[in-house]
Amino acid sequence: MAVPLRRRLPMLPLLLLAAGGLRAVERSSSAMEELATEKEAEESHRQDSVSLLTFILLLTLTILTIWLFKHRRVRFLHETGLAMIYGLIVGVILRYGTPSTSGHDKPFSCSQEDRPFTTLLVNVSGKFFEYTLKGEISPGKIHNVEQNDMLRKVTFDPEVFFNILLPPIIFHAGYSLKKRHFFRNLGSILAYAFLGTAVSCFIIGNLMYGVVKLMKLVGQLSDKFYYTDCLLFGAIISATDPVTVLAIFNELHADVDLYALLFGESVLNDAVAIVLSSSIVAYQPTGENTHAFDAAAFFKSVGVFLGIFSGSFMMGAVTGVVTALVTKFTKLHCFPLLETALFFLMSWSTFLLAEACGFTGVVAVLFCGITQAHYTYNNLSVESRSRTKQLFEVLHFLAENFIFSYMGLALFTFQKHIFSPVFIIGAFIAIFFGRAAHIYPLSFLLNLGRRHKISWNFQHMMMFSGLRGAMAFALAIRDTATYSHQMMFSTTLLIVFFTVWIVGGGTTPMLSWLNIRVGVDPDQDPPPTNDSFQVLQGDGPDSERRNRTKQESAWLFRLWYSFDHNYLKPILTHSGPPLTTTLPSWCGLVARCLTSPQVYDNQEQLREEDSDFILNDGDLTVTYGDTTITANGSSGPHTATTSLDGRRTKSSSEEALEHDVGAADHEVTSRGTRLVFPLEDNA
Amino acid sequence: MAVPLRRRLPMLPLLLLAAGGLRAVERSSSAMEELATEKEAEESHRQDSVSLLTFILLLTLTILTIWLFKHRRVRFLHETGLAMIYGLIVGVILRYGTPSTSGHDKPFSCSQEDRPFTTLLVNVSGKFFEYTLKGEISPGKIHNVEQNDMLRKVTFDPEVFFNILLPPIIFHAGYSLKKRHFFRNLGSILAYAFLGTAVSCFIIGNLMYGVVKLMKLVGQLSDKFYYTDCLLFGAIISATDPVTVLAIFNELHADVDLYALLFGESVLNDAVAIVLSSSIVAYQPTGENTHAFDAAAFFKSVGVFLGIFSGSFMMGAVTGVVTALVTKFTKLHCFPLLETALFFLMSWSTFLLAEACGFTGVVAVLFCGITQAHYTYNNLSVESRSRTKQLFEVLHFLAENFIFSYMGLALFTFQKHIFSPVFIIGAFIAIFFGRAAHIYPLSFLLNLGRRHKISWNFQHMMMFSGLRGAMAFALAIRDTATYSHQMMFSTTLLIVFFTVWIVGGGTTPMLSWLNIRVGVDPDQDPPPTNDSFQVLQGDGPDSERRNRTKQESAWLFRLWYSFDHNYLKPILTHSGPPLTTTLPSWCGLVARCLTSPQVYDNQEQLREEDSDFILNDGDLTVTYGDTTITANGSSGPHTATTSLDGRRTKSSSEEALEHDVGAADHEVTSRGTRLVFPLEDNA
Repeated sequence: MAVPLRRRLPMLPLLLLAAGGLRAVERSSSAMEELATEKEAEESHRQDSVSLLTFILLLTLTILTIWLFKHRRVRFLHETGLAMIYGLIVGVILRYGTPSTSGHDKPFSCSQEDRPFTTLLVNVSGKFFEYTLKGEISPGKIHNVEQNDMLRKVTFDPEVFFNILLPPIIFHAGYSLKKRHFFRNLGSILAYAFLGTAVSCFIIGNLMYGVVKLMKLVGQLSDKFYYTDCLLFGAIISATDPVTVLAIFNELHADVDLYALLFGESVLNDAVAIVLSSSIVAYQPTGENTHAFDAAAFFKSVGVFLGIFSGSFMMGAVTGVVTALVTKFTKLHCFPLLETALFFLMSWSTFLLAEACGFTGVVAVLFCGITQAHYTYNNLSVESRSRTKQLFEVLHFLAENFIFSYMGLALFTFQKHIFSPVFIIGAFIAIFFGRAAHIYPLSFLLNLGRRHKISWNFQHMMMFSGLRGAMAFALAIRDTATYSHQMMFSTTLLIVFFTVWIVGGGTTPMLSWLNIRVGVDPDQDPPPTNDSFQVLQGDGPDSERRNRTKQESAWLFRLWYSFDHNYLKPILTHSGPPLTTTLPSWCGLVARCLTSPQVYDNQEQLREEDSDFILNDGDLTVTYGDTTITANGSSGPHTATTSLDGRRTKSSSEEALEHDVGAADHEVTSRGTRLVFPLEDNA
Repeated sequence: MAVPLRRRLPMLPLLLLAAGGLRAVERSSSAMEELATEKEAEESHRQDSVSLLTFILLLTLTILTIWLFKHRRVRFLHETGLAMIYGLIVGVILRYGTPSTSGHDKPFSCSQEDRPFTTLLVNVSGKFFEYTLKGEISPGKIHNVEQNDMLRKVTFDPEVFFNILLPPIIFHAGYSLKKRHFFRNLGSILAYAFLGTAVSCFIIGNLMYGVVKLMKLVGQLSDKFYYTDCLLFGAIISATDPVTVLAIFNELHADVDLYALLFGESVLNDAVAIVLSSSIVAYQPTGENTHAFDAAAFFKSVGVFLGIFSGSFMMGAVTGVVTALVTKFTKLHCFPLLETALFFLMSWSTFLLAEACGFTGVVAVLFCGITQAHYTYNNLSVESRSRTKQLFEVLHFLAENFIFSYMGLALFTFQKHIFSPVFIIGAFIAIFFGRAAHIYPLSFLLNLGRRHKISWNFQHMMMFSGLRGAMAFALAIRDTATYSHQMMFSTTLLIVFFTVWIVGGGTTPMLSWLNIRVGVDPDQDPPPTNDSFQVLQGDGPDSERRNRTKQESAWLFRLWYSFDHNYLKPILTHSGPPLTTTLPSWCGLVARCLTSPQVYDNQEQLREEDSDFILNDGDLTVTYGDTTITANGSSGPHTATTSLDGRRTKSSSEEALEHDVGAADHEVTSRGTRLVFPLEDNA
């Protein structure tokens, strides 16, 4: 397996920067070759500008058409689908409309005995020129170096996606997470994201290995295709990106819990897929030609997965916490510009820090976004809140549409496509089964523990919403050096096209066909109608076991939630109960230093402000009170009140921490900010 | 004169992107050299991340310290000065604290007979590696290739400044221009920017040539230093950047006209200096060793200057106008995100378009910013207005502080410094005389034609505010290949340090020493006290000639203003008089199509909204009415009224266009939006 250099960067800046200036410099210098090189560089620079302009034109066109679509309430085609179509059109024009110019940078070969150097000095008629290593080229591909200039110009370095375009998309996903609904469904989301992605990866990988074996039998396969390649394909294609579906959900205000499940899954999914794919690459059995199972390598891979994931998570959380502390303990909020700049820099530094430490920047950025939204957001001034949100919204929008229009373009301009009908059909079948094999069984298992069931129509919708998008593309394009990877890339591209266009376009009909309610107020909670399935099952004989499961699964979450609410929130933000009441009395001084004076003053007001970000109990109690009522089959308002009271008594008796609080606790309780655990049972 | 390749880009992405991912890939691949290259690439990537982190740390520190300073109202050190100090400290640490590692990328030499290729294929023990041309290295500098790794990592490609950092700074300058005060002083600003910069460049260039001659005599000069190099230095150092002074002006609300003069000058100044420097580079007499005056080359240079400047201006204006039209004729303002994205893309495309056409992107971006602010801004939704402003404000802030902290760093990390005490002292004297030689004579000439005089203390303040900053640095670092350019770069760096720290710190004392009023409401107009000088001179014997000059100078501006107000504004925005009233009647259909219905509906309201952006006459009449009163020595309110009426009658009789308007005109007049020329005389 050839290991390509992953850092073929020099291509990028040409496009990214479109370097220039001092354009009109027409030197009549004596040395003719100097002039020629200068001219060539200028010409190349001009082409770079033109190719970047092409993309800007594409995006502008996309924006204008999106506006038309939104204006006329057309929902069958999402902006990303549109961006791809425009990309396709421009790709066709570039491919078949531009002449193949391959004259002036004919490669020069000179033999070296040693290993390659990163820097090369070449003596050309007395002048020294510096060359930098771009990467290895497999001997068969040498002719590819002399390809169409324009096509090469519009081909980005794959690392651009990982280092420039994905971070803002992922950060925005984390930063814009609807915290309340996300945390309410946290367990299910984690299950779908971790277990689901692993299952999907494994199933797709194995099915694809079957397909590959079949292709070998039929003679459709012309080069090597290992089992690890199949697994890698499974990991790549398991990153769902239901951007189209979510946009329509947002527009139609579809069910918030389903939205939270889908969005949360897709966000964490990306992180899991990214780390999973690197773990699979790390799964390299000792020796060159053994592609069989190797226990040591397998456990190493698992270790790598856990290591990278937890490391990246820590990095993201730590930078988020540092930002929260800085914004809390300085009066930076008087200067929104400084605050926004600091926020931006700290969030970016997460990425770099993770990369510098050998973790995955994109994953770190995701958790940084979540931490920033959970803590730092509360400390920001009102202006900075909207500034940071809008800044990342614009960056996200541009980056996402750029990736999708690039995908359209890549179908025609990418020079190493390998389309194999058998593999493509096999892949479509595999992703269908892969998605089915994790949505339905996992939902069944989760429903055993969930009070608020994931109903059948929700499950069908989740099954349907398994679109592939930016992350799958970025993972697939990252390494296209070998035959197998090229085939995987071409197939991924087609899967993205198909799912975004067909599945994306079918979302609105699907929603009405599955009877999923739309026009929901996000702050309102699901009505009993959705729980019909749950009522039927909830009264069954396994309700005893169900309760126990819930109790157990809630334990960890409860611990975290109380820790967050009693310690982290008060330390990191201006909200939450004063630390002087939650910390033991011997920490008095520290508690007074860390608690912001605002906590005492405007506790009420803050609770109002970030209702979206803290699970305040009034809200939760009503939610679960509601559900309880439904499960019990009664619906009178007095029952709800009883249920509420019962819950409150129970929780306060359970929670040991509460006893330490003392007199101050009563006041807090009466104000309604005391901690109530949403997942706990009051049967 | 060696011509270096201006596109040593491969350095940049390493820093900009900090490419990465799939970090934990520890391949036990068979080929050892592959592993080594991979490891090396990873190590390099890690170093890139670390060096970018260094800059982020620097900026974060700067932000926190700025906050402290602002919090405590410390004004002697501006954020940019602070960024430089932190940069200096980190530079010292990097220079003397890191070991000099120059082992692993030892350059390899192989001789080629022909001219250099852009791509090189190297055969290393059977494997092919692709290399790309990075640039030429002069034979004496070959050892520099093997320099300290860390120092090399923190050294950016000069083109980064021109292609990434300057555009947002310059665009923001154009976009945030206080239109009313800018246009009121347009003539003076243009004079200072064009004539002033040219004079300054020429004087500094000649003085420096004297210094260079002296150095040659004393034996301080070890290499060639031509007259054109001196002129180039003059152009580089003529770009003033009073960022520190303007920040203090803003904070203290110093006199708005002085602010407009300084800000306007510095903004256009940059554009002139950039184009001037490329024209000087283009001034290359035929033959290698003739550095004497060549009339043909001189006129070619002038042609190049005019060509680039007008071309870039056109590019910027055209993209601005296109954006205005798009935002006017679509209902994009219902979707602020789309609108902001479009605005951003269109503004960026100006840069690329100009570069692709061979003009100067930075200059185009400046005029695009002004056009966007003048027209497009009026069409944007309220949310997009704040979004675009804030977006570019953040980008500007980050880019500016980054450049200044990089400057601090460069003093120690740049490897080719040449500090010549004689040259440095000579340069300081030259910039002093260069500034004095354009501020005082130009002000004298302008005062002949200005009704609202530039008083002595204003002139002293302008003289004092001749700081050098980002643009001078960017121009100087662009080409540091030869001995003369290296000396110029080092000197520029010191001049920037000195002016930002000393002059910047002295702004507040200087303001009070010069009796320049602070705490001015920007919408208010200068009180008569400032016009004491004017009153004394205005009543002199040359008042007749003065009036004629004013009349003449106003002619062009009046023409433009009436064209803008009557045609451009109504076509490009939702404000201004309806086109149906300003266009001749045979254009009725076109006029109706182009006029937005809002014009008829909420003309009043719009006038209120963008009072900062259109010169509405109520405002102007009062301003100049005021001045007139002062000049006549009387101050009764009834005189003012008479003056107002007289003006209005006069202007309406003068303006031929007004006659075409017909009945609708009367209505407009009565509403108070009719055009009144501020600069015209009613004596």
